[in-house]
Amino acid sequence: MGKGRLEAFSDGVIAIIITIMVLELKTPEGHSLSALVPLAPVLLSYVLSFVYVGIYWNNHHHMLSVCHRVSGSALWANLHLLFWLSLFPFTTAWMGENYLAPGPTAAYGAVLLMAAVAYWILEQALIVADGKDSALRGAIGSDWKGKSSPALYLIGVALTFWRPWIAQLIYVLTALMWLVPDRRIEKIVAR
Amino acid sequence: MGKGRLEAFSDGVIAIIITIMVLELKTPEGHSLSALVPLAPVLLSYVLSFVYVGIYWNNHHHMLSVCHRVSGSALWANLHLLFWLSLFPFTTAWMGENYLAPGPTAAYGAVLLMAAVAYWILEQALIVADGKDSALRGAIGSDWKGKSSPALYLIGVALTFWRPWIAQLIYVLTALMWLVPDRRIEKIVAR
Amino acid sequence: MGKGRLEAFSDGVIAIIITIMVLELKTPEGHSLSALVPLAPVLLSYVLSFVYVGIYWNNHHHMLSVCHRVSGSALWANLHLLFWLSLFPFTTAWMGENYLAPGPTAAYGAVLLMAAVAYWILEQALIVADGKDSALRGAIGSDWKGKSSPALYLIGVALTFWRPWIAQLIYVLTALMWLVPDRRIEKIVAR
Amino acid sequence: MGKGRLEAFSDGVIAIIITIMVLELKTPEGHSLSALVPLAPVLLSYVLSFVYVGIYWNNHHHMLSVCHRVSGSALWANLHLLFWLSLFPFTTAWMGENYLAPGPTAAYGAVLLMAAVAYWILEQALIVADGKDSALRGAIGSDWKGKSSPALYLIGVALTFWRPWIAQLIYVLTALMWLVPDRRIEKIVAR
Repeated sequence: MGKGRLEAFSDGVIAIIITIMVLELKTPEGHSLSALVPLAPVLLSYVLSFVYVGIYWNNHHHMLSVCHRVSGSALWANLHLLFWLSLFPFTTAWMGENYLAPGPTAAYGAVLLMAAVAYWILEQALIVADGKDSALRGAIGSDWKGKSSPALYLIGVALTFWRPWIAQLIYVLTALMWLVPDRRIEKIVAR
Repeated sequence: MGKGRLEAFSDGVIAIIITIMVLELKTPEGHSLSALVPLAPVLLSYVLSFVYVGIYWNNHHHMLSVCHRVSGSALWANLHLLFWLSLFPFTTAWMGENYLAPGPTAAYGAVLLMAAVAYWILEQALIVADGKDSALRGAIGSDWKGKSSPALYLIGVALTFWRPWIAQLIYVLTALMWLVPDRRIEKIVAR
Repeated sequence: MGKGRLEAFSDGVIAIIITIMVLELKTPEGHSLSALVPLAPVLLSYVLSFVYVGIYWNNHHHMLSVCHRVSGSALWANLHLLFWLSLFPFTTAWMGENYLAPGPTAAYGAVLLMAAVAYWILEQALIVADGKDSALRGAIGSDWKGKSSPALYLIGVALTFWRPWIAQLIYVLTALMWLVPDRRIEKIVAR
Repeated sequence: MGKGRLEAFSDGVIAIIITIMVLELKTPEGHSLSALVPLAPVLLSYVLSFVYVGIYWNNHHHMLSVCHRVSGSALWANLHLLFWLSLFPFTTAWMGENYLAPGPTAAYGAVLLMAAVAYWILEQALIVADGKDSALRGAIGSDWKGKSSPALYLIGVALTFWRPWIAQLIYVLTALMWLVPDRRIEKIVAR
């Protein structure tokens, strides 16, 4: 089965997710620039989620570029990932409206965690689909980023009820860690 | 006529449908995790519809992969299917907000039923378009899933006014039945 | 310049337009099936617009399939068409909420008229872009549908302040006239 | 790395941005045509932003058509551009609802400015990615449009607190200046 439509569909869903998050930036009541100030946490929360969805799109792009076959399981693993990504607008809005509150910060981290797990499952399904000659298996290598991220989110979620700002800092730092595109896969593609 | 744009347009519409359903998950009023509890039925209803739209996308994908020609009738049969799928966000939200109420459960089942009928019509239009050498005709075979689903939805709708939870159980079980991708078509593609 | 991205972008915009119209179908207040009754005009208005957007997508698809070149003017003529199509959700919602009121019915017809004019402009721009060997020019022929539609919408708009239902009937009949796909272009493609 | 998915993803996001802006055109309260009058500033603001997003799509299309390679930096420069474009619906709605107020006019211009800067950054990243043989570098030439636009937006933003209408006039005139597609790139493509 070709991967073209899987890529096209994922691109569509991810494009919509990244764009509808901005609908949470409600038009301010007044018309002075100071009316924008209360929106700052919503905007910051939007920026963080925009970066995260961008990271997922980038990595998804890289990952599929070294795959040749897509199995039925991979299709569903992909939909599973898209499901968790589709909850980003919800947790983004909730955290944005309740800056530094423990509940929304924990929910935000939990969705990040589930998306990371779903991404890992998709990776495994794609490796299995390509069989012994999977270029993706070699490209991933030890995959320390993919393995440490869920742990970091888990630590973040655990810390929300003590110091929510530390959790949010962990989410930001993990995003920064991923901002560097995956050189390992780029190398494989270059060859 | 090529099928490329038909696939692209369907992917676009289905991607939007699957994503705007999440807009019904309104940001909760409070900021404690317990504020999420009343959202549980809305979330469950979203999960069920997400799976259904995923199933339709998967099957649509499989079905078109064995077709060669697309006729004018098939274009309209496809739009007809997309119309019923576009009502999913509406019935999903209504059932989610009124968990276990007979009316919304019946409406949800009725839209499932119409989408299943529309899918069957599209299948027939595609078989006719490909003529005698239609690979789809052979791939479908007896099509017991496609034939039993409308019957199951009909039973579900009929039961809503007696026991809505049985209807919802039927919707869930029918989804599970479809989760297994269509091996028959996969076999044809593999050849 | 290739036409691939023009088609992809148009497909994206049209897919979103056709889908966000359904957002006007607000979740009903109650949970009995009778709560759906007041939604009937909104739903009918949605069905009509869904069919119209479907017609535009179908004809756009046919038209571009016989074109070879896309000029800068054609890109802007296409955006101009998409602009008027993007107003469909607005007029659809307004007419749906004020069934048989003259104002919304006139506004609906005016947007139909402008979209028809914009489609004609795009057609001319594509014919010019392909030059003397334009297959589209031959395919269109006398184009009685394209020429009569704006006149019909104009008559509809004029009649809204006398009998709105006649205007709405004209909109429906014109849609039915277009439902038949353009055999002239299909013939050219077949050759 | 191929540019196909970058184009597809950008098309998706831009298509959604251009379409969700219309959601700000809220259904009017009454049902007489005069109920449309208060919507005029919102509509004008929508038209201006529609033209701007159309310009960005057109130029993005042209720019990528002469590129061969896409680097990791270009992917992120592209997401950065999409981020600023995604704020258009927000500033469009705010300016539309507070016609001629200084604050929203300044915010609108500031987002235009940032999008122009982001476009310039993307251009540079694409030139670097293609290396010495970059066709884009030659196609851009002196790039007086790209260089003068940020300056014009900056002047506009500065003037908003003195005469907002002059700022808005500058935004309109700059859009008109861009409406002419980039002949330089068209020439390169033609060769």
